[in-house]
Amino acid sequence: MKSQPRIILASASPRRKDLLTLMGLDFEIIPSPREENIEGDLDPADYCQALAYLKASDVSELVHDPTAVIIGGDTIVVLGQHILEKPKDEADAAKMLTRLSGKTHQVITGLCILQGDKMIEKHVITEVTFRKLSPELIKAYIQTGEPMGKAGAYAIQGKGSLLIKSVNGDYSNVVGLPVAALADVLVKFGITCLPKP
Amino acid sequence: MKSQPRIILASASPRRKDLLTLMGLDFEIIPSPREENIEGDLDPADYCQALAYLKASDVSELVHDPTAVIIGGDTIVVLGQHILEKPKDEADAAKMLTRLSGKTHQVITGLCILQGDKMIEKHVITEVTFRKLSPELIKAYIQTGEPMGKAGAYAIQGKGSLLIKSVNGDYSNVVGLPVAALADVLVKFGITCLPKP
Repeated sequence: MKSQPRIILASASPRRKDLLTLMGLDFEIIPSPREENIEGDLDPADYCQALAYLKASDVSELVHDPTAVIIGGDTIVVLGQHILEKPKDEADAAKMLTRLSGKTHQVITGLCILQGDKMIEKHVITEVTFRKLSPELIKAYIQTGEPMGKAGAYAIQGKGSLLIKSVNGDYSNVVGLPVAALADVLVKFGITCLPKP
Repeated sequence: MKSQPRIILASASPRRKDLLTLMGLDFEIIPSPREENIEGDLDPADYCQALAYLKASDVSELVHDPTAVIIGGDTIVVLGQHILEKPKDEADAAKMLTRLSGKTHQVITGLCILQGDKMIEKHVITEVTFRKLSPELIKAYIQTGEPMGKAGAYAIQGKGSLLIKSVNGDYSNVVGLPVAALADVLVKFGITCLPKP
């Protein structure tokens, strides 16, 4: 097997770490110090694409290694044209979950892969449809603590699976990284993803 | 909170156990001793519905408790009108994965919920589209050992996530139990699913 370049995940998300591990990659984690926020009136896809770029380029400046392949990603939840961020507190989480109840929203992950001057950007959209949630279910779900720190106030791979009616698109994208799309981009950097025994 | 009836999962699948746990249920596991096989020329949905019924009714006879709610489920992978069972060996797994590569197949779970003379049956269909898989990827995936014991020779929630392009429908159905549909049926037996802290 030929050797693969150094791979750096520019994110502290444990879910992204798990997904990259499932992809069979050896990688380092160097989170971008950047706050996940951009001012201005961007289209949702452009917004997460811009954040992914900023995260990857921040880390690129930190590591000073033009051979390293740096993976930046940002995942957002979009209802209509409105971006749902991470909830500020439990009341905010309840508001978000009430808005998402019974509706279909989009989850968009912007990817930015950098290696020296070479850059490939891509975003992937997955539609997620929520069940109609009772106030009792919303309350119980918030009490699990799972909504905090999650865009849109839910984790699809956790107890949040009880909130979901259906998914249309790449499921791993909703968890935090579109595995298939990322694997396809990495091939262009000479990296083949093969699961490990 | 009012007390819920005794709940029995008629399956030894660790994935079904995990999903029921995520749903916040307290339950016992009493696997049906039945071989997962029915002779005859049934439509795929009827096939897994019939197996779910046999599993639940086997366990119902074993436990002799008309108040117990028994959950039977059977999940199959269908490509065209052909049912892909669990692979017999690694060569069989390679054959299945090669057939699934680049195509969309259906995953159907038949559910049968029994309580004394009361019975509700339901099946849920999810479409799964595979990436185009290289022989190298198929070989590496088989070497993980994950395909064995899984219908269609893959586990969507494991390293198999690298094989998947997209999902259309309930993702948990592909893992082994359609969480939303099951929660809706359980309400009719007086059981409310609420996640636990």
